[in-house]
Order: sequence, then C-alpha cells, then structure tokens
Amino acid sequence: MSGLLVGGLLSPAAAGSAAEAATSDAAFLQALLDAEAALARAQAAVGVAPQEAAAAITDAARDAARFDLRDIALRARDGGNPVIPLVADLTAAVPASAAPYVHRGATSQDIMDTATMLVSARTLDLILTDLTRTADATARLASAHRDTPMPGRTLTQHAVPTTFGLKAAGWRSLTLDARDRVRAVRDSLPVQLGGAAGTLAAIGVYGEGGGEGDGDGDPALRVLAAYAEQLALREPALPWHTLRTPVADLATALAFAAGALGKAGADVLTLSRTEIAEVSEGSGGGSSAMPHKANPVRATLVVAAARRAPGLAGTLLGSLVAEDERPAGAWHAEWEPLRELLRLVGGAAHAAAELAEGLRAHPDAMREHLGLTGGLIVSERLAAELAPLLGRARAKAVLTEAARRTRTEGRTLAEVLADEPALKDLDLAGLTDPAHYTGSAGALTDRALERR
Amino acid sequence: MSGLLVGGLLSPAAAGSAAEAATSDAAFLQALLDAEAALARAQAAVGVAPQEAAAAITDAARDAARFDLRDIALRARDGGNPVIPLVADLTAAVPASAAPYVHRGATSQDIMDTATMLVSARTLDLILTDLTRTADATARLASAHRDTPMPGRTLTQHAVPTTFGLKAAGWRSLTLDARDRVRAVRDSLPVQLGGAAGTLAAIGVYGEGGGEGDGDGDPALRVLAAYAEQLALREPALPWHTLRTPVADLATALAFAAGALGKAGADVLTLSRTEIAEVSEGSGGGSSAMPHKANPVRATLVVAAARRAPGLAGTLLGSLVAEDERPAGAWHAEWEPLRELLRLVGGAAHAAAELAEGLRAHPDAMREHLGLTGGLIVSERLAAELAPLLGRARAKAVLTEAARRTRTEGRTLAEVLADEPALKDLDLAGLTDPAHYTGSAGALTDRALERR
Amino acid sequence: MSGLLVGGLLSPAAAGSAAEAATSDAAFLQALLDAEAALARAQAAVGVAPQEAAAAITDAARDAARFDLRDIALRARDGGNPVIPLVADLTAAVPASAAPYVHRGATSQDIMDTATMLVSARTLDLILTDLTRTADATARLASAHRDTPMPGRTLTQHAVPTTFGLKAAGWRSLTLDARDRVRAVRDSLPVQLGGAAGTLAAIGVYGEGGGEGDGDGDPALRVLAAYAEQLALREPALPWHTLRTPVADLATALAFAAGALGKAGADVLTLSRTEIAEVSEGSGGGSSAMPHKANPVRATLVVAAARRAPGLAGTLLGSLVAEDERPAGAWHAEWEPLRELLRLVGGAAHAAAELAEGLRAHPDAMREHLGLTGGLIVSERLAAELAPLLGRARAKAVLTEAARRTRTEGRTLAEVLADEPALKDLDLAGLTDPAHYTGSAGALTDRALERR
Amino acid sequence: MSGLLVGGLLSPAAAGSAAEAATSDAAFLQALLDAEAALARAQAAVGVAPQEAAAAITDAARDAARFDLRDIALRARDGGNPVIPLVADLTAAVPASAAPYVHRGATSQDIMDTATMLVSARTLDLILTDLTRTADATARLASAHRDTPMPGRTLTQHAVPTTFGLKAAGWRSLTLDARDRVRAVRDSLPVQLGGAAGTLAAIGVYGEGGGEGDGDGDPALRVLAAYAEQLALREPALPWHTLRTPVADLATALAFAAGALGKAGADVLTLSRTEIAEVSEGSGGGSSAMPHKANPVRATLVVAAARRAPGLAGTLLGSLVAEDERPAGAWHAEWEPLRELLRLVGGAAHAAAELAEGLRAHPDAMREHLGLTGGLIVSERLAAELAPLLGRARAKAVLTEAARRTRTEGRTLAEVLADEPALKDLDLAGLTDPAHYTGSAGALTDRALERR
Repeated sequence: MSGLLVGGLLSPAAAGSAAEAATSDAAFLQALLDAEAALARAQAAVGVAPQEAAAAITDAARDAARFDLRDIALRARDGGNPVIPLVADLTAAVPASAAPYVHRGATSQDIMDTATMLVSARTLDLILTDLTRTADATARLASAHRDTPMPGRTLTQHAVPTTFGLKAAGWRSLTLDARDRVRAVRDSLPVQLGGAAGTLAAIGVYGEGGGEGDGDGDPALRVLAAYAEQLALREPALPWHTLRTPVADLATALAFAAGALGKAGADVLTLSRTEIAEVSEGSGGGSSAMPHKANPVRATLVVAAARRAPGLAGTLLGSLVAEDERPAGAWHAEWEPLRELLRLVGGAAHAAAELAEGLRAHPDAMREHLGLTGGLIVSERLAAELAPLLGRARAKAVLTEAARRTRTEGRTLAEVLADEPALKDLDLAGLTDPAHYTGSAGALTDRALERR
Repeated sequence: MSGLLVGGLLSPAAAGSAAEAATSDAAFLQALLDAEAALARAQAAVGVAPQEAAAAITDAARDAARFDLRDIALRARDGGNPVIPLVADLTAAVPASAAPYVHRGATSQDIMDTATMLVSARTLDLILTDLTRTADATARLASAHRDTPMPGRTLTQHAVPTTFGLKAAGWRSLTLDARDRVRAVRDSLPVQLGGAAGTLAAIGVYGEGGGEGDGDGDPALRVLAAYAEQLALREPALPWHTLRTPVADLATALAFAAGALGKAGADVLTLSRTEIAEVSEGSGGGSSAMPHKANPVRATLVVAAARRAPGLAGTLLGSLVAEDERPAGAWHAEWEPLRELLRLVGGAAHAAAELAEGLRAHPDAMREHLGLTGGLIVSERLAAELAPLLGRARAKAVLTEAARRTRTEGRTLAEVLADEPALKDLDLAGLTDPAHYTGSAGALTDRALERR
Repeated sequence: MSGLLVGGLLSPAAAGSAAEAATSDAAFLQALLDAEAALARAQAAVGVAPQEAAAAITDAARDAARFDLRDIALRARDGGNPVIPLVADLTAAVPASAAPYVHRGATSQDIMDTATMLVSARTLDLILTDLTRTADATARLASAHRDTPMPGRTLTQHAVPTTFGLKAAGWRSLTLDARDRVRAVRDSLPVQLGGAAGTLAAIGVYGEGGGEGDGDGDPALRVLAAYAEQLALREPALPWHTLRTPVADLATALAFAAGALGKAGADVLTLSRTEIAEVSEGSGGGSSAMPHKANPVRATLVVAAARRAPGLAGTLLGSLVAEDERPAGAWHAEWEPLRELLRLVGGAAHAAAELAEGLRAHPDAMREHLGLTGGLIVSERLAAELAPLLGRARAKAVLTEAARRTRTEGRTLAEVLADEPALKDLDLAGLTDPAHYTGSAGALTDRALERR
Repeated sequence: MSGLLVGGLLSPAAAGSAAEAATSDAAFLQALLDAEAALARAQAAVGVAPQEAAAAITDAARDAARFDLRDIALRARDGGNPVIPLVADLTAAVPASAAPYVHRGATSQDIMDTATMLVSARTLDLILTDLTRTADATARLASAHRDTPMPGRTLTQHAVPTTFGLKAAGWRSLTLDARDRVRAVRDSLPVQLGGAAGTLAAIGVYGEGGGEGDGDGDPALRVLAAYAEQLALREPALPWHTLRTPVADLATALAFAAGALGKAGADVLTLSRTEIAEVSEGSGGGSSAMPHKANPVRATLVVAAARRAPGLAGTLLGSLVAEDERPAGAWHAEWEPLRELLRLVGGAAHAAAELAEGLRAHPDAMREHLGLTGGLIVSERLAAELAPLLGRARAKAVLTEAARRTRTEGRTLAEVLADEPALKDLDLAGLTDPAHYTGSAGALTDRALERR
C-alpha cells in the first residue's frame, strides 16, 4: 500500500487515538472492501451467485494493505469516486471465475455509503466507550462533591452559591444525552444497496425471477436483507442514495456530542483560570516558553472540537438537499466532513474522558471565593428573609444600602446588617453563610445520578 | 400594545402563515406571561403561595395586548433580556397583595426558556400538521404513480429507469423521518426552573421546609413538578440553564425537516425545468416582466429555507458550549436563530404541503424522455443479458460499439444490436424498453407506503 | 400602512437602534420605491421616457407609508417576491399617463437587489460611525494605559506581563480592520439592472436605438449609468443577478466586524469576572433576582452577535452558487440573512461603542494580580538572565526548583532565589518585578496608535 | 520521517494536486522549520545572535524529512501543539553552541502562525495560477460565443434569450473577483512574532538594549522586521496572536473563490443535463455500472467544494473571538479548517481550470431550445412592440390570449399573432426570433472582457 505520509500534526486531540485509526484512509479502504465482499456473500446466500465466487472475493478483500491506496485515490479523479478504480483492482485480484461477481448489480454509491456506515459504526463504538468513561468519572465527581459549595456564576458574576456536585452532575447529564443520541444513531445505521438509480434493477436481473419481484419473493430484496445481515447493519426500507437521513443523523448526534462535552470543557477552562483555580487538570500541558505554566490542554482541545463541529454538521445537513437519484455535489460534499466529524468527536471524547478522570477539585478555593463579595452572594436570600420582618419595601431599601456599604466599607454584609436594630434577633452569620444557601442542589444531584 | 410595523416583506414563505403568528413578538410576550402565571399557580398548588395571588397574576397575564411590547423591548437593553421590564409591568398590573408572588423565586432565564418552549411547542404542532399533509399527499402520488416509469438521473445524466412512484415514496419517507424527529422533540420539551444559579434555592426559601429539601418532600422540587403540569410541558431532571439539550434538539429536528423537504423541492425544481417539464406546481408563480412564465414558487421557497436552516442550527449547536450557570452570550445568541428556525420551517412545511397537494405529474413527458438516449438508458441491462450469450468480454465490446453507433447514427440501441447475428433470437425491443426495467421500484414503493 | 407589530423583543442589542430602523420592513419598502423612482428618472434623463412620468412616479414613491406593507407582503407569496404586488400598487398610484413607465424594462430582481444595496449603504454608514466611535474610545484607553502593567494570559493561565494599553491597542486595531473592510464594501455597492435575464433587452427595446446597442451609444447602458447616478451607487460592469459578489462582500465584511468586536467583548467578559475585576462596564446590567449584580451586558450582547454572524455569512456565501440567470432558492435565501446581519452588526457596533466609551480599567487589580504567582509570571525573564551566570543547564535546574518552592512555600520567587549564593549580586527584586518586564508593549502601542 | 499513510481517498478534487502537497503535514513541518530558521537568521541579522548559530539552525532545518513527523504529532498531545516537540528535536539536531539560539524569545504560536502563513502563501500562489487559467479559458469562451444565443433561464424556466458569451463573461467576472480577493490576501500575509504574551519581551531581553526599547531603536522590533524580510512576508504592526485578521481574510477570500467557481459549476451541471446538453465537459467521468454515461465530474467536484467552504470559513470567522493573549480553543480550532479550506479551494481551482479549458458548447442545442416555447420566450418583447399599435390594455389581452393558444394549439406565437389583422404589417417572424432579442448581451460581454 503506497500513500502520502501524514502525522496528524494539526489534530493533537485525535493524533494517535483509536478514532484516528478508525477513520483513516486505510480504514475506509478496508470498509469498501468489506462492503464488496459482503455483497458477493449476500448474493451467494440468496442463491444467485456461486459460493466459491463469494469466498474468493471475500478472501481477496480481506486485507486492504494488498491494494495501492494512493493509486486508487489518484485514479478516483476521473470518475469522481474511489469505487471505480477499486472495483477494477479487486476484479484483477480474484480468479477469473469469480470476476463477474465482483460489484455485481451495485453502483459506486452502494459501496461508498455502506463503507461509510461501517466506518461510522466502528468509530461510534469507540466514542460510546469514551462517553461512558466520561459519564462515570463525572458521576464520581458529582457524588464526592455533592455538598461542596462554590459560587454560582451568571454572566461572569457571582450570583448565588451552588455546589460542585451539581455542576458535575450537569456535565454527566449532558454526557448521557450525548451517549443516548450517539447510541440511537449507532443502532440505526443501514447498509446501502439500490443499484444505478435505486431500483435494485440490476440485482434483480441477476436474480432468479428477474426484475419483476413483488415483496418477500423479490430476489433483489432478499439480497438486500442478506447484505445487511452480513454486515450487521440495518436493512433500510428504501435505498437512500438521496434520502440522507442516516448521514444527517450522524451529523447531528456527533455535533451534539461535541457541544455537550464542550460545555464541561468551557467550565474547566473558566475554573482553571489563575485567579480562580477551583479545578485543575490531572496533568497540565507545558509551554515552549514558560516552564512554570500548566495549561488546561485537554479542556482546550475539547472546546476547540466544539467550535468546529457545527460547521461540519451544517454542511452535512445541507446535503439533505440532494436532487435526482444521485446528486452532483451534495453527496461528494459529505465525505470529508463526515470523516472529520467522526475523528474530531472521537478525539474530543477521548480527551474528555481523560479530563474527567484526572480532574482535581479544590474546595478550599471554592470556599474562599464564596466570601469574595462579603456575603452579597446570598443577598437574594436576605431579601426573602427580611421582607416579613421589615415589610417588602423597607427590606429592599435596607438591603440595597447594606449592599452599597458592604462594597465600600470592606465589611461583610452580616456586619453591616448587624447595625440595624430590627434585625438583632436574626442569626445573621448563619443567614449569610453561603454554604447554607445551596437550595436543592443536593437533591437535584441525587436524582440526576439515578439516571443510568 | 405599541410596536414597530412589520410585514414579513422578506419572508414570503412565512408571511401570513400560522407559524409566523405563532412565533411573533406578541406570541413570545404572551408565552412569557403564561410562564409567569403558571409559576404563581404552581406555588399555590403546592401550598407555598395564596391561591388568590395566583389567580390575580393569572388574570393580569391573560392578554399580552395589555402590555406595551415595544416599551418592554426597549427597556430590555439595560439588563439584556425582556423579563426584567416585564416583571416590573406585571407586578404593577396586579393588586398589591399579589405583587410579592410575581416571579417569586425565579430568574429571568426560567421565564425566557419556558416561554421559548411554549412557543416552540405551539409552532411544532403547526409544523406537524403540515408534515402530515405533505406525507399524505406524497403517499397519494406514490400510489397513483407506482408504475409510472421515468428516467432515473445521476450526476445530472440519465442512468437507468425508475418510477415516479418510487421518487414520491422517497419524498414521503423523508417527510415521515422529519415528522418522527419533530414529534419526538415536541414531546420532550421541558419547563425551565432553577432560580438564580439553578439550585432552586429561592423557591425553597419560600417553601415550607426551607432550602434543605431531599427528594419528594423537597418543596422546590414539588413546585417544579407543578409548574410543568400547569404548562403541559415535561419536568426536567435538572435545571438546564447551561445544559442546552432541548434547544439543540429543536435545532437539529428543525434543520432536518428543512432539509428533508428541500430534497423534494430540489427534485420538483429539476423536473419543472422547461426542457424537462415532467411535473408542474398546481399554480405557478407569476413574473413582473414575463406574462407567460409559471415559476415553481413553492419549491423555490422550500429550497431557500433548506439553504438557511443549517446556518441557524449551527449557531444553536454552538450554544451548547455555555460556561458557568448562565453564559454571557451563548444564551442570548439562541433567541433569534431559534425563532427564525421555527418560523422558517413553519413556512417551508406549509409551502411543501401546498406543493405536494397541488403537484401535477406528466407521465407522457417522462415516457418521452426515457427514449432520449435511444435505449442506452437500459445499457446496464443489456450488459447482463448479453454476457451469457456472447461471453463477458465480447458482450462488453459489442455493447460499447453499439452504444457508440447509437449516439452517432441516430438509430436506437435495439436497431443497432439487431445487426448482430448472434442476438437475432433475443426480444431486443422488449429488452430495451425502459418501462420493463424498473427493477424492484414497485415493491419498494409498496413497502415504503406501509409505514405509518 | 398596515402590518404586524414587533418590538425587537429578542434582539436587545438592536432594539431601538438606528440600525433597527434602517433595516426595518418599512425601510425596505421605501428602498424598493426609491429604486423604482430612480429607474424612471434614469430613463427620463437618457431621454427614453417623459420627464413628467418620472416626476409623477418619484412623487408617488416618496413615502412608503402610503402603501400597505402587510398587504404587499401577503401578496408576495404568489410570485415569491414583493416587487410584483408593489409594482401593481405603484402603478395604481400614478396618473394613467405615467403608468407605462413604472418598472419599465426591469425585472423584480433589479428592484429587490437595488433596494437591498440602498438599505445596506444606509446601515453601513451607521455602522461606520459606531466603529469610529469605538476606535476613538479604545485609542483613548490605549493611550491612557500605555504603561499600565497587567498579567498577560494564555490558555487561561498567567504567562508574562503585558499592558492594558497594548490590549486596548489591539482592540482598536481590529476595529480599524473592520472599519476598512466595511468602508471598502460601502463604497463598492452597485445598482442592479439587467431586465428579465440580464441582457437589458427590454430597456433597450424602449430606448431609441432598439436592442442592438454597442458600447457608449447603447441606450440600455446609458440608462444603467444614469440609474447608478440617481442612487449614488456604483454602476456594475455586468448585471449581477447571479454574480453575487456584492452580497458576499457584505457578508464577509459584516461577519468580520462582528468577530472583531467580539474579541474585545470576550476580553471584557473575562476581565470583568468577579475574581478578576480588572475592568468594568460603565453601567452594568441588572438582574431580575439579585439586586447586587452588575452584569457586563454590552459585552455579552457583542459576543452574542459574534456567535451568530458566521452562520448568517455562511448562508450568504453559499448563495454564490446561483444557477442560471436567476436561481430558484439561492437568491431568496439571501434576503433575511443579509438583513439580519446588517441589523445584528448595527446593534453590536452600537453596543461596542457604548462599551468602549464607558469602560473603566482598574490598574490596582491588575497590579495585584501580577503578584499572584509570586514572581513566576516573569520566570521567562529569569531563565534568560541566569543562563549567562550559571550556565544554561544549571540555570534551568535552579529555576525549576525555585518555581516549585515558590508554589509550595508561600514565598516569592525573589525570596527563594536569594537563597542561592551565586545570585547574590543580582537585583532580584527588580528582575522579578512584573512591571519591568513588559517588553516592547509601549513601543507597539505607540506604533499602533499612529494608524488612522 | 514516519507517519500514517493517506491517499486522499475522499478528496478526489485535491488528490494528486499541487495544493494537496502544499498543504500536507510534511509541508507544514517544513514551514515550521523554515520559521525557526528564519527567526535565528533574523536575530543574527540584527546582531543579537551569532551568524554561525543561525547558519547551523538553518542547515538543520533544511529538510523536514530528517524529522519524525509522526512522533512529533504524537508528542504534540501533551502541550496541545506540535512546536514544543519540534523545538526539542531541532535543538537536538544542532551543535551545542547553536542550541541556545533555537526558538529563542519565541512562543509556539509565533512559529505555528508563521508556518501557516507560509503554507498559505505557497498554496495561494497555486490557486492564483489556476484562477488565471480559468479566467483565460472563460474569456475565450465568452469571445467565441459573444453572439451565440441561448435561453436565459430564471427560476428554472425559460425567461428571455441571452447569449452563451454573456454567461461565460459572467463566469470570468466572478473568477477575476476571486483572483483579486485571493491576491490581496496573498500580498498581506504577515509573519507572527510576539513571544509569550505578544510583548516581544523575551526577544528584547536577548537584544542589546534590553526590553525597554522605543521605536526604531527597539531591538525586538528590529528582529521582527528582519524576520519578515527573511520570509518575504509582511511585518505586522502588532503581534496578532488574538487579532486574527489574517486568518479571517484567508477564510473569506477562499470561501469566496469556492463560491465563485461554484456558480460556473452549477451552470455547467444544469446545461449538461441529458435533456439540455448545451455544454459538455471535455472528458466526462465514467460510471461503475453504466458504460454509456459521461458525467460532468469536474463540475460536480467544484460544486461540492462550494458546498463545504462556507462551513469551514464560518469556523474561522468564529475564531476571531479569541480571549486573552492566546485563547483556549479558538486558535486550535483554526488549524484543520484553514488547511482544509486551502486544499479544498486548491483542488476546486484546479478542477475549474480543467473544466473551463475543456468545456464544449453546443450552439445547435441552444438554438433548438430557444424554440421550445414557440416564441413565448420573446413575449416580453412583443408586449413592448404591440402596445403602441394596440394600446397597452388591448396589447396585453391579445398577447395573453396568443400565449394561451401557442401553448395549446402547437403553433408558434408568430403564427397565432398573424391571425390578428391589426398586426399584419409587422415582421412577426423577425420580432419573435429569439436570436434577435439578446439586448445588450454583446456590448456587456465586450466591456466585461476589457477587464484585466
């Protein structure tokens, strides 16, 4: 197998990952061969091709390394897809008696689409493993920090307290949402078989009954079913050359997964800031210039993937608009974006699993930051508590003035409010303790963790 | 209610449609009010607010026309969202005794997100109706034209024959895929309630047991459940201020629907071309300059929607990356794209239903075009039939030469092949009749139509 | 003028702004009328239509409020664009003698595209004003804080010191880049005139010499030149019905501007965080739940706009692929995204100008944060200074150990290094003072401010 | 050099092209080395590093094949970018005396960004060559077919006649627009040099005068200027680590080019349809199933590229929002999309040049199609001619009825109108000859061809 050398130089998240290998050109070439072999076996299984031919084709197609990847890619220019030269090479690689059964009745798109589904299935399996790892690790974080208070932040500002457990439970919730969507797509991936214009006519011609089949007895439909069985993919109701639901579903599930992981990545980036430092990655990334730095590299790569996924998914959604029985452009525009999306999310899921498993939380820093506003972080609670005592209007006035003084006098809200005689019986220290104002965070964390 | 005047001047697909009204600023304002009213009723139902207050708030919120839409929008600039001024106006509109219960325990995002789900639910219902109309109309086309042969076209060229029934069955299949995805999202839309940072703390403070709830007894969680019940939306496991699965799911289902309809639109555009004219819209659109023209306007608008949806969905998918407990920008970036996507797909679904219901097929033109290549459209079949007779290599050579002569001599493939003595016993007219080479198109159409 | 009411409820950045008005349906209607009037005057100027007719048409088109916006929008459904019903209404509004000259020789797209260019020109002028305000305000910040040191941050971590002046100079640089790109597009906006298929044939028929023109004497080309002159837009070399350079240029310049402003917005959001607080908006936004909060609302809205612009621009770039002499969908897909992009960037530019003019820097907080790492923020410098004294390898070892001790012992890097006898002659306090390690920040700021 | 094998299997447009090689991982590695070598030479040129060290580094960096691409890519995972391991390997490859001068004063991003600009410059040069070829070939088509009439088509329907020359002139016009935008970006590409946080501090420390430079005498600024000179790229006014104008400009120019070429591709696809066949590609692509087919493969690949470019450009525009002095994600999200965009447009430009140079026009088919509507294609003209004779209202009525009869009676418009006594003196055959109603198409073509 000849080819260009690549290193994954610009894709650090994917470089060296199983997803990189699963989406490589070599993996696609093998999947194309797997599809051709399965098609031959399916015809043999239904009795419209000799078992020997199917066996010979399967044998010839066993190892992509026997084919010249680069040469096939270069010859793909003429017809616009790599199946045409591959069929020539595969035909040349089988005994003459098997040659007529190579690619028989199929069109290039049957093989390309089926191979793409195989590559997708294999990569989604890897992604599902990493999503499960991420969900498990975030579950452990949520459980361990169920009652660890920290500042809740909205529009960059401290709002009211929350817990790190609830935050981690949210990350897990999104991860499970991603897992559910990816798994549903994984289980729905179909083979493609329709022949030149999606009617299975050539398959039928070679079948016993000719092209006039009806229902179960239709030999072409029986080949289709056998083909799906051979590859452990779903049998579609219709050829989907221009009914691109499977590709659109892959696009949206993958883009969702990238974004879902990106939420956790964005939180880690914020909480890792030098001034905040409430979490840190298990092992930070180095710098070429500053030896003291420990960069949140995994979170960075996860967030970078989330920035790229929507554009790729958008292109694939756009390819739903596929005219005729095979479109001139929409189909070709799917190939690289889908591969890239699989690889990107594969790399991101791997990085996210490492990130979640290695993440260290720093409750002391969280606790310290809860005090940064001198108690103003629980002003919402005070408004609720003071209203019955002072009346609503006066409560608001007292609190507004106390907030102002808290900010300007360097005293805490509790100290300032203690100046107010009407509040002398209140447990102001307790009421302004942020750790006592986390609401239903614990209960919400518990119920979120019940999800499996 | 004051406001700017708009006409929908640049949105002909949506102008005047039910979806346009359902996504209008007035509809959003009403949904915001519905959310506020339901929150008060939920607290009353759980026993933490007086029934009278809930009734008074519900009454005041009944009619958005009582509020000054434009004024609220302009005051929204200060805080960055319209809930802040709306709460002020709603509070002013209720008796003093009910005032403390307006918006109690909630944050702006609780109301905005819930209102968005209400608007989405109402618009998706309209879309589902139009998708069903489209599916029904395309089912009728598929059934009526189950055996109407036409050229199958790939990469713009005649490939092999197909049927108009199979094509229409494909349109229906995509429409049903869209319906299934839209319906699943419709049924999953949740209310939003979390308070300032998603802990439900303020809701809890006002509840009987304070903020220390656990599970079922937690008053805040009971308010959340009651709130969902009041609005007939789902109760989420967690507040989703920054867990944006519902918005992402809306985005992908809607973009899928736009693309699915766009496929049919693109086919209609191609088949409507002056040179092809195999279908025509029920009533074509006029021209400002050429009185003879009948433009495929509905297909054009459907395709235009499909071009716009991926970009809007991409923005919404990007907003999954939402830092903290409320993000600074990602949330705000959702509002207009989601509204636009609802409106766009609403308009497109309506246009698609009209398109499908009015579409006229022209079997004569289809039949005529099947003959355009002098029989070459079934060359695939001949290759299969001649191989056993002539041997594979010679069959290919004979056919290649015959194809060349067909193109250059102005005779049909059958006529040219009749020159070949070895083929004199074949029914060449029958074998080269495109109508006899539609494969499993009929069987596929039948099984596709079984889907409900 | 009838119409729906809107408030801008979901667009707080644009609500009430001049850009909102300039891109309203009413503004588009007026621009359509302006285009029709100019076309009549152009024909009169060239002598192929009576001056009286042109004057009558101009008079009738003077005020869009005389036309029924909503009715025109609803009637636009039939033909797919609003020009067809508008022409009918305008024709009805002029004396019978002028009626034949309304829209004479034009196609709907001539008027729509020209109106879009008028609306764009007017909105870009507003945007240019706000970009200039932003550039001026950031210049003042850069100048005032030329020598204000602050932590430089990379991948969320302190790296080495920089200055607030250099940061503000960077914001200005991007703003000027945006201004230059927007201004170049503003100055290039062309009229559209081509007639039904871009040949100007109907314009020519009504001209003196018929449709057989050649060069300067061609009456149709003279009408085109006069039309451009009437509207103070550029005369295009060719009709651009399907040569969409002007729309693509608008898209990219506007998306660039949104992103350029978004950079400053993102910095302000980071620097506004409760834990950082190195800058604050002139007046922060309120909260519906927490009276103490001051949210960076303008930065939030600017960043939200930057998240939306690429998706809109992508749709417009996609519409470059416009088949035939008028495409079925690509053109229609431009209208709303271009309008939205103009409005969005208009709102963002306005918010950015307010943000920049009101922004307060807090040098004390910057200075305090420079000390957060105990001097490690200048470890890069120490590595350079120690190498000549200790040899490169030993310098690195000493520094690595000193960094470790700085982090764990609570002492500064200077204190730790003072333990090392070989360094006793060094001015360690000076060498580890972050304010003395800002490199060429000042010189870079100066040269950046020279740009006009 | 080790690495994975790739073949370009999914990128037929780019496979084997010069743009593929210019954007390969190996090309990036060489560009990274070129940047490191130039940095050393720049410091030597300014006198702050020994010439011998610069020469040794330059020598070691001469051939990327000496480095282990795959190993570097895998080690890039730790720090998130490949410069860190590359610097280690390059340092190991030079004599000990030169080692301290490798990467001195720079940060990873300085080298990555500069290498990206080098790769971009080299690829844009290739693209410019192919755009020029395309422009030249379309000029020849426009000139040769200046007066070849064909149907103008709008919204898929025949509108009025145009010429193939005008259409080709439009393709050329867009190609030249693309060339101008690409060339402007090519000429503006800057080096990157700022050090850890963009202040050039470390560069300055190693310079003679320390870090306190001012203006021309500032040694760091002199290194920056020398660095730009070494690489024949522009010297930026400021380090642009987070001022991403160069990347955004690349994105928009490339996406524009893809779309501009896509317009011609879309036209070729339409005109190549079996039913239309007014043009054909020089050599059509084959099919794996149908030997008779000649697919418009190049146009398909060009259109596929145009579908993908906007999503990639959108991601790059989104990365303008880059917080701090180096963003955590936005920068990393640029690398693959920019490379892919360069490669994609490189492949598309090459395919477009081949397409344009080989395109064959079929004037007979064009002429035949002009007659398809029996003269209705010039109904616009008749409306203008009949009005003076019959009065406007009656002319319209006559024409509408004649159009109806033309469509239903199988006669031409001229024949039908001849029934009308009032028109008996008109040259109806001439007036309804489509070839006589091409307006200013010739004059427009001429003036478009004057552009250089």
